[in-house]
Amino acid sequence: MINRLGKYTVEFGDAPSITGYGSVAGKKEYEGLLSDRFDKIFFDPRAGQKTFEKAEILFQQEALTAALGRANKKAEDIDFVFAGDLLNQCISSSYGMKEFRAPYLGQYGACSTMVQTLFLAALTVSSGASSLSAAVTSSHFCTAERQYRMPLEYGGQRTTTAQWTVTGSGACLIEKVDKGPKIAKATIGKITDLGIKDANNMGAAMAPAAADTIMNYLDDTHTRPSDYDLILTGDLGVVGSECLYKILEREGIDIIGRHNDCGLMIYGEGQDVHSGGSGCGCSAAVLCSTILPDMISGKYSNILFIATGALMSPLSSQQGNSIPAIAHLVNIVC
Amino acid sequence: MINRLGKYTVEFGDAPSITGYGSVAGKKEYEGLLSDRFDKIFFDPRAGQKTFEKAEILFQQEALTAALGRANKKAEDIDFVFAGDLLNQCISSSYGMKEFRAPYLGQYGACSTMVQTLFLAALTVSSGASSLSAAVTSSHFCTAERQYRMPLEYGGQRTTTAQWTVTGSGACLIEKVDKGPKIAKATIGKITDLGIKDANNMGAAMAPAAADTIMNYLDDTHTRPSDYDLILTGDLGVVGSECLYKILEREGIDIIGRHNDCGLMIYGEGQDVHSGGSGCGCSAAVLCSTILPDMISGKYSNILFIATGALMSPLSSQQGNSIPAIAHLVNIVC
Repeated sequence: MINRLGKYTVEFGDAPSITGYGSVAGKKEYEGLLSDRFDKIFFDPRAGQKTFEKAEILFQQEALTAALGRANKKAEDIDFVFAGDLLNQCISSSYGMKEFRAPYLGQYGACSTMVQTLFLAALTVSSGASSLSAAVTSSHFCTAERQYRMPLEYGGQRTTTAQWTVTGSGACLIEKVDKGPKIAKATIGKITDLGIKDANNMGAAMAPAAADTIMNYLDDTHTRPSDYDLILTGDLGVVGSECLYKILEREGIDIIGRHNDCGLMIYGEGQDVHSGGSGCGCSAAVLCSTILPDMISGKYSNILFIATGALMSPLSSQQGNSIPAIAHLVNIVC
Repeated sequence: MINRLGKYTVEFGDAPSITGYGSVAGKKEYEGLLSDRFDKIFFDPRAGQKTFEKAEILFQQEALTAALGRANKKAEDIDFVFAGDLLNQCISSSYGMKEFRAPYLGQYGACSTMVQTLFLAALTVSSGASSLSAAVTSSHFCTAERQYRMPLEYGGQRTTTAQWTVTGSGACLIEKVDKGPKIAKATIGKITDLGIKDANNMGAAMAPAAADTIMNYLDDTHTRPSDYDLILTGDLGVVGSECLYKILEREGIDIIGRHNDCGLMIYGEGQDVHSGGSGCGCSAAVLCSTILPDMISGKYSNILFIATGALMSPLSSQQGNSIPAIAHLVNIVC
């Protein structure tokens, strides 16, 4: 039974459960704050492949394989896989998922993609369209730099507002059983564009989208930040988190005591990542390595997970456009 | 009520209806076989905008606006918009849809995207997650050439197997009412890769995916091609359609008398499009200009609409990868 709450929120009556999850990370992420929590670490940025892109493809495969193992399922049990990444034409996902031979729907929400895939996987399961759906995303510092910025060899200086694309992947499996963390509600975001054009300051571009979605969710559910153990944004980083606090404060909403950001959780001080981590592998790897296990162990029982995305391309920036941003939210309970 | 039929097919119990549809096309499409059937024609490839990309953004807006007009709805009535296109980071969709201020989920299925968006829009409505969902896609010859091939000014020779990217867009609105064409069933495809590496022969790369999805649907529903008025593929073109006939013939399935292809329906002889039209605006514009009105007027009452996509990128081709392909199917009844 799926209901709508208010204008923007969907409630899953029999909340579908996340029965499997898997995470993959690179060397820099291993050297960060979540070190030993990832299922698999690749110390080589090419992961033994010929290209960085083929490494990222492998990350998705390893993350989904780990999730299948945890859920005690096989690839052929999957009714739908929703996957996405940051690369042009989502090739990490299409090449990554093809060997699983499951019905595939490619998703593009930039760094918001993990929540987008979780929502659609939960929707298919909760509605009866699927018995087992997968949600998978990835990113890779080296593939993202190649595509969005400069050749690595160029050694360009980074601005202080810039974020560091996480090398990693996360995958979740969703089933209609009453076991473990459940996706109880979701609020899908509207595209927000306040005119920011600096592609090195995506936190500031994404913060208004996060604020809009959080406010819509709180309105629709008649709840307050203090009703949740954790309000976890995807990858606003230092700059974007500060912007989010300021926007919400003006609306009389204080999340500071409850808030954390995946982009701030993954790297430690001294790792030279400037404003924090980013990429749709960031929120995915943090969720699947740390947050879900912490929910199962009882540390958290009711969280809001909000992934934010900047929906520009290098071409749209070259053509002088501002950055449209979006944020999607899921309420996960355990 | 949503049920699964067999291994791959979803049946929508109270089939959601396509209550609005809109189509946009360019000059070459207007000069083709469907000439006066489009809602709006742009004779200027820039549509009065500064760039081809901004023109494509406008196409999506005009297509959705036409669909809203036909359904007698406003933008604020939309609970979810599923949109996609061929450009890097799906910018035609993110910039195109932002002004509608509706919850947005970006889709990437290359030329299969129109059926992908129709399936998800139908799923949200049928499950109760939405009262009104939109499905929108677009493509543009000039934006696609810039991104995937050569600068237009280069004037490169095209191979005979190459297809011509359609300049156009289509949009559908879906509601849970009993009125007009309905989405009754859907089969989501698996990624198929038989090793074809020639990005100028995408019809051949996509035909095995179309065959796989059609066979899965016929198996799951225990139906035969003769049960349908029309089996319409998205954009296999001349070469891909021939491949599809051959693959299905080996399995004892004959669709020739029932089959047509959007890529063959849109352009006339002498338009120098080689193997036919392509692009996710192709199947969208043909569906929304011609097929849906023909269903409403009684020409067709039960069709299979199968959009096919090639999921490579220029980078994946440069790195020597073969072309993964996919096909999604919806059964539309009226």
